[in-house]
Amino acid sequence: MVTEGSDRIIEQIVKQLNKLIDVIKLIDLSNTEHVERELMLVKFNVTAKERANIMQIADVFRCRVLDVSHNSMTIEATGRSSKLDALLNILDEDKIAEVARTGVCGLGRGSKALKV
Amino acid sequence: MVTEGSDRIIEQIVKQLNKLIDVIKLIDLSNTEHVERELMLVKFNVTAKERANIMQIADVFRCRVLDVSHNSMTIEATGRSSKLDALLNILDEDKIAEVARTGVCGLGRGSKALKV
Repeated sequence: MVTEGSDRIIEQIVKQLNKLIDVIKLIDLSNTEHVERELMLVKFNVTAKERANIMQIADVFRCRVLDVSHNSMTIEATGRSSKLDALLNILDEDKIAEVARTGVCGLGRGSKALKV
Repeated sequence: MVTEGSDRIIEQIVKQLNKLIDVIKLIDLSNTEHVERELMLVKFNVTAKERANIMQIADVFRCRVLDVSHNSMTIEATGRSSKLDALLNILDEDKIAEVARTGVCGLGRGSKALKV
């Protein structure tokens, strides 16, 4: 999960979450080197003609095309949330029909791992 | 979100969710053609020698390598949950250090979109 707040607030959140029965162990990744990724699906209302333009941007952002129909197209993008925001910004808003995002998940860099 | 139950239970869940203030509109994708994808990060404890084996499997499942250190490696995979389960199954359990999954997100196929 992702949240915001001062050190004191974050500390409280960590403590409260640790109290929950379903939570076995919890670490705060933000203070360590980590990778963080999110998945986003975007559907466009585009004709076959307009498709090339989207494909070009999709290529730059290393997206995958998941579905194409006569007047629509769906792509999948993964990356940091800021990258996905940048992608949405550059895309023509009028053409976007739907967006679905999973929210962020992350792991620490290197061999250190969360062990129970 | 993903849930399971009989038609009656699903209908109840849809009705209850629609009552929530934060929910603006809700559609049940399961009865329509749709794409559904999930993101998974997997960290392995592997030496440089053992890395090739993982890279091979990662290649088959079109994963991306996110991080490599002397004794670890992190990959990113996207796909239907069943594909990600299959990937985890084929990977050597002893080598897996950590797994993080985002949960599923999906969009209907074709140009039909959720409109507010």
